[in-house]
Amino acid sequence: MTTVKAYGTTSPTDDLKPLDITRRNVGLEDVKIDITYCGVCHSDIHTARNDWKGSTYPVVPGHEIIGRVTEIGDNVTNFKVGDLVGVGCMVDSCHTCASCQADLEQFCENGATFTYNSPDKHIENQQTYGGYSTTVVVDKQFVLRVPENIDAAAAAPLLCAGITTWSPLRHWNVKKGDKVGVIGLGGLGHMGVKFAHALGAHVVMITTSPEKGKDAKALGADEILISKDASDMQKHKGSFDFILNTIPVGHEMDPYLALLKIDATMVLVGAIEPMKPFHGGGLVMGRKRVAGSLIGGIKETQEMLDFCGEHNIVSDIELINMQDINKAYERVTSSDVKYRFVIDMASLKN
Amino acid sequence: MTTVKAYGTTSPTDDLKPLDITRRNVGLEDVKIDITYCGVCHSDIHTARNDWKGSTYPVVPGHEIIGRVTEIGDNVTNFKVGDLVGVGCMVDSCHTCASCQADLEQFCENGATFTYNSPDKHIENQQTYGGYSTTVVVDKQFVLRVPENIDAAAAAPLLCAGITTWSPLRHWNVKKGDKVGVIGLGGLGHMGVKFAHALGAHVVMITTSPEKGKDAKALGADEILISKDASDMQKHKGSFDFILNTIPVGHEMDPYLALLKIDATMVLVGAIEPMKPFHGGGLVMGRKRVAGSLIGGIKETQEMLDFCGEHNIVSDIELINMQDINKAYERVTSSDVKYRFVIDMASLKN
Repeated sequence: MTTVKAYGTTSPTDDLKPLDITRRNVGLEDVKIDITYCGVCHSDIHTARNDWKGSTYPVVPGHEIIGRVTEIGDNVTNFKVGDLVGVGCMVDSCHTCASCQADLEQFCENGATFTYNSPDKHIENQQTYGGYSTTVVVDKQFVLRVPENIDAAAAAPLLCAGITTWSPLRHWNVKKGDKVGVIGLGGLGHMGVKFAHALGAHVVMITTSPEKGKDAKALGADEILISKDASDMQKHKGSFDFILNTIPVGHEMDPYLALLKIDATMVLVGAIEPMKPFHGGGLVMGRKRVAGSLIGGIKETQEMLDFCGEHNIVSDIELINMQDINKAYERVTSSDVKYRFVIDMASLKN
Repeated sequence: MTTVKAYGTTSPTDDLKPLDITRRNVGLEDVKIDITYCGVCHSDIHTARNDWKGSTYPVVPGHEIIGRVTEIGDNVTNFKVGDLVGVGCMVDSCHTCASCQADLEQFCENGATFTYNSPDKHIENQQTYGGYSTTVVVDKQFVLRVPENIDAAAAAPLLCAGITTWSPLRHWNVKKGDKVGVIGLGGLGHMGVKFAHALGAHVVMITTSPEKGKDAKALGADEILISKDASDMQKHKGSFDFILNTIPVGHEMDPYLALLKIDATMVLVGAIEPMKPFHGGGLVMGRKRVAGSLIGGIKETQEMLDFCGEHNIVSDIELINMQDINKAYERVTSSDVKYRFVIDMASLKN
C-alpha cells in the first residue's frame, strides 16, 4: 500500500483540506493512474456535506477522473503505461448479476462499488476515495479509454455529466430529426444539448431564463422555450419526441408532460428528490411516460467517449487549482459556473 | 330522426329518470343497433354528476353497449342485420390525423367523438347520448363484432373496462412467464387479472384487503401481495416485470415503484387525478418508468373481443333493470359490486 496526497473533509461541516490517504498496490487486474484532472460534480458536495446521509468520513470526492496509466497488473492487456484514461462514478461491481451481465453495472444487484464513499473491497474498514488525489488504482474493467484528440481537462466531466445525459438519449433512441427538449442548463443540461445536437435532433432548450437560452444556442440548441411563458408553452404542446429533464430538485412535472407527443417519454436525471404532485391524466391522455436514468454502464460510457472523440465533444469548463475547491463548492451551490469546474491536479502535486 | 326511450339526468344533483332522446336516421355508413345490454362504468357517474366539469345536460350515460344490428346503411359491408355487436367509449374520430392513422382513435388530435357528452356531428346543438337507451346509430368504423360464444350481458364491460386493461398489457408486451402485478380489484382490476392470466403471466394481486386477494385468486391470480404488509412488500422488491395500477384516485406511487424490476413500467389506468408526491430516485435507481394508458383504439378493441371469444373471457357482472340505476350508482360509489353492473335493456323497453 502507498500513501498519496488527497483533498477531503473529515466532517459534514468542515471545509475540504489536504489529507493523506492509502491506495492499494497494483493487483493482477489493476491499472494505476496518475490523475491529471478531476471534475467537480454536485454529488461531490452532497456527499462531502452528508446531504444524502450515509457519508463515511473522511470523504475524498471526485468521480470525473482523467489521467495517464503509470503501472499495470500482470493480467492487464487492454491498457499500457502512458495511455490516457478515465474513471467515472464506479470502480467495481459484482460482475455476475443480471444487471452486470447486461452491461448495467450502475444497477448491480449486489451493489456497485462507487468511486468514493463505497466500502473498499481491497482495503479492510476503508471506504473508497475519489479523484481529488494524485493517483488511483482501479480494476481494468472500470477504466475507460479517452481519445487523445480531445482536450483532456474538458473531457473529465464526460465521465459523469456526459454519460448521465448520453445514456438516456441513446436508450430512448433519440435520432436525427427528433424534437428533443432539454430542461435546465447546468453541468448535465449543457452536455444534453451538445449530445442531442450531435445526434441530429432538433434541440429545444427549455428554461426559465432567456439568458440561459442564448447560452444554449451557442452550445447547439436550435430553439428556446421559456417555461414561464404560458403562450410559448401552449405553442409547443404535444410536440416533443423526448425530454431530458436535468432539474436537480423536486418540481412540478405537469407543464412538461403537456409538451410530450403521444407515447413520448420525459426522463429525470437530476431530481433524486421528492417530486411535487402531478396529474395522472397528464400520463393517461396520450399514453405518456416518465422515467429515470442513472449514469450508464461501462460499455456505454466507452461508446460515449469514442463518440466524443469522433465528434470532438467535450464539456465547457472552468479550470481551478485544488486549493480553490471550497470556493468552487460555494459557486456550484449558487449555480455560478459554466458549466463544470475541473481541478488541475498538478496543483495538488506541487 | 327518431325518438327513442332513454335514461338520463338533467342536472348534476338529480337522479337518473326516463327521458325521450333523438337518434339520427341511418346514413350510408351507419349501423343501427337494438341495445340489449349496457354496462355501468364509474365514468358514467362522474359525467352524470359533472365531477369532471364540462357535462352538458341532459346526460345519457353508457359506453359499454351490446346489441343486435337492426338496420345498415348502403355502404356498410362489414355488418349485417342480426349481428351481435358492441360499441365502446367512442363513436367517431377525424379518421385523418396521425393518431387515427395509427389506430389510436382515443388520442385523435382533432378530438374523438365520445359515446356520450361529446358534440354530436350529425345532430346540430346536441351532444351524444350513450347506451342507457333502446337503440343507437353508429358509424360502421366504430362498431365492434362480438363473438357469439360468450355471454352477451357479461361481454358489455369488455368495451371499456376490458380494453382499458387489455391495451396496456398488450402495448407493454406482457407475455408468458412475466411477473405482473395488478393493483386494485374493481371493474378494471378484475379484467386485468383475467387478461394477464390468459396471456400466461404470473399474476400477483396487489391489494390492501386479504378478502380481495382471495377473490382475485378465483379470477386467475397466482399470488396475493398485501400492500400494507411491509415485509411482504420488501420480499417482492424489484421483482415485477410490469404493474397495472387500477387505483381510481390519487395515491402514493413510491411503494409500488420499489416493486418494479430494472427498466420495468407501472401503468396508471384509473387515477385521472392529482397523484401524491413521489421520489425521483424511485425512477432514477433502476431506470424505471411510470406511464398512463387510456382505453384503446378500435382495431385493438376488436382484437381484445376476438381474444375473449377464443379464451371465453367475460366480466363478472350483476345484472340489473334500468329502473334500479340510481341504487346501482350508490353501490358503485361505495365499491359494493363484483365487479360491474350491467343493465338488461329489455327492462327499458317494457
